[in-house]
Amino acid sequence: MDRFTDIGEFGFIDRIAAHAQRNRVLCGIGDDCAVMAAGQERVRLVTVDAMVEGVHFVPQAPPEGVGYKLLAASLSDVAAMGGKPTDAVVAVSASGNCDVGYVERIYNGLFACADRFDVAVVGGDTTRTSGALVLSLTLTGEMARDQVCYRSGAQVGDAVYVSGTLGDAVGGLGVVLGDVDLPDEVRTALLQRHYRPEPRLDLGQALAETRAVTAMIDVSDGVASDLSHICQQSGVSAVIRAAAIPMSRAFVKFCEVSGKEELDLALTGGEDFELLFSVSHKQVDKVEALAEAYSICRIGEIVAGDGSVMIEDGDGKRVLLEELGYDHFGG
Amino acid sequence: MDRFTDIGEFGFIDRIAAHAQRNRVLCGIGDDCAVMAAGQERVRLVTVDAMVEGVHFVPQAPPEGVGYKLLAASLSDVAAMGGKPTDAVVAVSASGNCDVGYVERIYNGLFACADRFDVAVVGGDTTRTSGALVLSLTLTGEMARDQVCYRSGAQVGDAVYVSGTLGDAVGGLGVVLGDVDLPDEVRTALLQRHYRPEPRLDLGQALAETRAVTAMIDVSDGVASDLSHICQQSGVSAVIRAAAIPMSRAFVKFCEVSGKEELDLALTGGEDFELLFSVSHKQVDKVEALAEAYSICRIGEIVAGDGSVMIEDGDGKRVLLEELGYDHFGG
Repeated sequence: MDRFTDIGEFGFIDRIAAHAQRNRVLCGIGDDCAVMAAGQERVRLVTVDAMVEGVHFVPQAPPEGVGYKLLAASLSDVAAMGGKPTDAVVAVSASGNCDVGYVERIYNGLFACADRFDVAVVGGDTTRTSGALVLSLTLTGEMARDQVCYRSGAQVGDAVYVSGTLGDAVGGLGVVLGDVDLPDEVRTALLQRHYRPEPRLDLGQALAETRAVTAMIDVSDGVASDLSHICQQSGVSAVIRAAAIPMSRAFVKFCEVSGKEELDLALTGGEDFELLFSVSHKQVDKVEALAEAYSICRIGEIVAGDGSVMIEDGDGKRVLLEELGYDHFGG
Repeated sequence: MDRFTDIGEFGFIDRIAAHAQRNRVLCGIGDDCAVMAAGQERVRLVTVDAMVEGVHFVPQAPPEGVGYKLLAASLSDVAAMGGKPTDAVVAVSASGNCDVGYVERIYNGLFACADRFDVAVVGGDTTRTSGALVLSLTLTGEMARDQVCYRSGAQVGDAVYVSGTLGDAVGGLGVVLGDVDLPDEVRTALLQRHYRPEPRLDLGQALAETRAVTAMIDVSDGVASDLSHICQQSGVSAVIRAAAIPMSRAFVKFCEVSGKEELDLALTGGEDFELLFSVSHKQVDKVEALAEAYSICRIGEIVAGDGSVMIEDGDGKRVLLEELGYDHFGG
């Protein structure tokens, strides 16, 4: 008997992906959002995310942060296609003993995020469960059909970029869980990135409008894992330069105090919700022009290969990244 | 501290409904589907439903039936607006010990239903939980903006109709749970209605096209409860005639053998997924014209009142229906 623990999340998704196909479905399971035709020129985007107490958030997590992040994570999926979010529905399964005030605080965080990004929360279902609190959210978005940024278009010679800084969210989790002795401003900065992640919607739309982006994904499992998704779906490999990985001062301080290896943690820590994308080398200027308005950083190149990701040190030595992030079931 | 057990599902939805409002949202929480403007003449419908092992389905339930019903219940919500379903996404939260084969059988049932009603299953999220299996499904649909059948339009003098027969699904649940000694064909008929409910999509669309329907809902909580939703949201009351309630022979046999009171069970048993609707008394002919193609039955009238439902016996005596179905938390 196969158990969920054995096959991993991605294996299970593959087993069911074959059923997603219909003419009106431009992209089913396998990208940040499903993409459906909406007339000749527009598409509708849909993404679903579930969060489980004890798995995706710890009991000591502030409930407002849990709710904010539930929606922000889905907004990041819409950002990764280059789209604009429109509306969301939420299903909550709570035990009869669950404190309504606690769930309301989760909703307060969710609505704070919805208000900020002009998303209408248009429906919900509340059900009883005997087990852990489960929240699932479905977000709908839209965009021009000819601007959608899939994961599968990276080409040899493309430049690889990432937005923002990496590792802060996992640093924030370290602050929540551990007894790391950090200055207040460092704690606050990391917790903010952990509980109030910033979906890069404006950047995603600006990138889609350049038409220079060949592939895009959001950093949810860690750059190592997420870049390997782009590579595998595009049939290429990638090299990233260790020295180019953007890190915040707060994150560097966290690693210093907690004794973590910076680069490992920056590349494998998930939930940064930054955008990771490849750009046609002939059109790099169009993307560089956005660097005034947005924090983006060129970290590597797409090369010929079989879907692997290599890291290059200061001496030009390349090493395969074996540790490719986190799989929810394979853990 | 308020607990979910105390306030009930409907109270909780009210608390959050205020946040659903945006210009592009024509109807947020409070109907079978949320309704969003999609251009000038069309609308997009969205509905979400969650099912929890041990609450919405028993461990001995065939997993294919669980999956089929998960989608069928949402299709019924789209039918109740008069719409056409397009695509669905599913979130599954399973424990690491959960048998993948069991979940695959749930998906097999879901896909059987999706294929039958031409719904694309375009996305999913699988997460680990320490507790019971939780499935949540979000279904999208579409229709003409001027044909949407809300719950809130019933007027004094309207006729009240229901499709199909009532009580079969709860009879099927009795067969699953109990040791009722029934002929095989009765067991099979009731189990079929319980695990393979028939969302009335064609009828819903045909009714919407007549433009004669003033309010519509699907029978998910039981006619008593669902008709009270129409009445409360329309600011009217309703009288239904006991003798007019449509029941199948299998259901009548089930009640006879198990000693259940037919009328009570037919009116309060949920998950029949039939359509319950009111029709302008001047336009009853348009709906009666559909009676050749569809099984529909006139069961009562809308009267002036404060949202209550009365039942009229053969002598014309009217009694308020106090027992108004099942509330997931208050239950």
